[in-house]
Amino acid sequence: MHRRDVLKGALAATVAGGALAAPAIARAQTKVRWRMPSSFPQVLDTVYGAGAFIAERVATMTDGQFEITPYAAGEIVPPLGILDGVQAGTVECGITAGFYYLGKMPALVFDTGVPFGMTPRQHMAWMQYGGGNDLMAGLYDQFNAVQFPCGNTGAQMGGWFRKPIESVDDLKGLRIRAAGYLGQIYAALGAVPQQIPGSDLYSALERGTLDAVEFVGPYDDEKLGFQKVAKYYYGPGVLELGASLCFLANSQAYAALPATFQQILKSACSESYTDMLAKYDQRNIGALRRLVASGVQLKSWTPEIMTAMQTATARLLADQAATDETFGRVHTAWKAFLDEQLLWGSVNDFAAESFIVANRGR
Amino acid sequence: MHRRDVLKGALAATVAGGALAAPAIARAQTKVRWRMPSSFPQVLDTVYGAGAFIAERVATMTDGQFEITPYAAGEIVPPLGILDGVQAGTVECGITAGFYYLGKMPALVFDTGVPFGMTPRQHMAWMQYGGGNDLMAGLYDQFNAVQFPCGNTGAQMGGWFRKPIESVDDLKGLRIRAAGYLGQIYAALGAVPQQIPGSDLYSALERGTLDAVEFVGPYDDEKLGFQKVAKYYYGPGVLELGASLCFLANSQAYAALPATFQQILKSACSESYTDMLAKYDQRNIGALRRLVASGVQLKSWTPEIMTAMQTATARLLADQAATDETFGRVHTAWKAFLDEQLLWGSVNDFAAESFIVANRGR
Repeated sequence: MHRRDVLKGALAATVAGGALAAPAIARAQTKVRWRMPSSFPQVLDTVYGAGAFIAERVATMTDGQFEITPYAAGEIVPPLGILDGVQAGTVECGITAGFYYLGKMPALVFDTGVPFGMTPRQHMAWMQYGGGNDLMAGLYDQFNAVQFPCGNTGAQMGGWFRKPIESVDDLKGLRIRAAGYLGQIYAALGAVPQQIPGSDLYSALERGTLDAVEFVGPYDDEKLGFQKVAKYYYGPGVLELGASLCFLANSQAYAALPATFQQILKSACSESYTDMLAKYDQRNIGALRRLVASGVQLKSWTPEIMTAMQTATARLLADQAATDETFGRVHTAWKAFLDEQLLWGSVNDFAAESFIVANRGR
Repeated sequence: MHRRDVLKGALAATVAGGALAAPAIARAQTKVRWRMPSSFPQVLDTVYGAGAFIAERVATMTDGQFEITPYAAGEIVPPLGILDGVQAGTVECGITAGFYYLGKMPALVFDTGVPFGMTPRQHMAWMQYGGGNDLMAGLYDQFNAVQFPCGNTGAQMGGWFRKPIESVDDLKGLRIRAAGYLGQIYAALGAVPQQIPGSDLYSALERGTLDAVEFVGPYDDEKLGFQKVAKYYYGPGVLELGASLCFLANSQAYAALPATFQQILKSACSESYTDMLAKYDQRNIGALRRLVASGVQLKSWTPEIMTAMQTATARLLADQAATDETFGRVHTAWKAFLDEQLLWGSVNDFAAESFIVANRGR
């Protein structure tokens, strides 16, 4: 239906613009309207905010001729139904994260990030110059979708725990909310991952139905109030060095756009990627200071725990690669690129940052 | 002259588009042509390439209605004359780096980066959410210019040395090509910084007129062939954690653009920022591998040397701040933001990356 509207609009514009005999002008007259549901609730102004950011940029760049209306999680499609909606053409586009759909296709986790994986910068280098974009395009094409990275949270925190976690043994039997791959890693370490909607997390933690919650980072977590019911806040985010969000568009709807609108959409998504990370970086440290001032115990995973997590991750990825050709192919390419970036970082960028972090305040 | 062309074009478009009574269409017809000189030669396809990237994106997003023509260093204005050219309106815009103009206004170094300063990610967070953009806008306004970050090299290497540098004493009397602030820091450590154009660096190093050259990183350095005449390649890039390039536009030329073109330009610059860094990250490690395979000795500064560099940097910044109110104001804001980001990194992103770098290959 929407696709038909677009085509009808294009046709009308061609007729109206006929006298000018200039295709550029004809296309500029085609007003396009898209609906953009999000997997995220409005309260998370960071991740949900990417939609408003992209819609505003696109409207400004097209002088209102390409109008994208954002909808919060669940408003017009279920929060985790974005890929289905885009594939079916129920909506023209949406904002979500690939790893929500690992049940459909495990290799989509590489579009978002995997434990012990890439920083936001490494992810972008892989996507743009390491073949990542092509690999991901091949996957999403099977869902009748095109995707553009449109945001990154940066490293997420390890989460909120009602008791201190001093050793791997302390994870045994722990009921923790940890989605997707993170849940599988906690399970491998003896914990009992729970799937609970974001809106119920606070009360589950308060009642003791849950022992721990992995969510995002200080700025988002503070809003949900976990600090009131779980005192121990663990880092660093080795299980999530970054989560790259994606803008998905229905392939036919995208193909029907004039080339100008296609590029405007892509540039707006790229700008949003940088904007979201900058926003998180600025806001997280302020929130963390407030949390610590309110009595939160900021704790670091022990090396033993991180090593166990890393071993569990390597095993999980290897097992998946052994039984899933697509996953194995993407994983091999992704890992080779990451290893090279880690080597480069150890020589230059990361090494320089290490000295500065270790000697800050001088 | 160009400004008049723009206005004349807008007027003609208004008349031609009158029958449509739609301002959006009228503006879409205004063809704008800008000239964009660069401070960089074409051989550096990374930094020079930003211009071609931005021009292409802008052309695509405006269906060719906003045409920006890139010129290499020295073609129509001197390599370091971009700010002058933009200020005078000789050219509408250009691509350069703020720190080239520290002689005019020292605080412009913060637009590019200072030793022991910000990573590309920290710089973007500061610019967009830490007040950096507003501070820089205030500085460039005095030169009748607006600026947008349009690229970042990532950390640059320490440079090429004909002899090993094992201690601060080895720097005494060393004739090193190191521009701007880096030169001042080397001077504080007893070296003798030289200002030599990029095109003459190879022969100066070969003849022994120079003992060392600081340039960019493996991908760019390899092209200039320094590895053939200086065997020791030092890192990490504590003196340059990142160099942010800027797109400068003449204030009147920018104000005369329709709002659509203004935002298209800004989004293209933002996309270019991410693109350049991704390109460098992917290409640098391959070049470094080739350099090492060809016999280059990859070396790390000793902690003693890095500490001396850090101390010299702190003194230089403090001295400048004491005598230059503008510099002091920007430095205070910049430093406060960086310190918070270093704290946040030490808790989460950097801490997570540290574990992964230390345990890579597992």
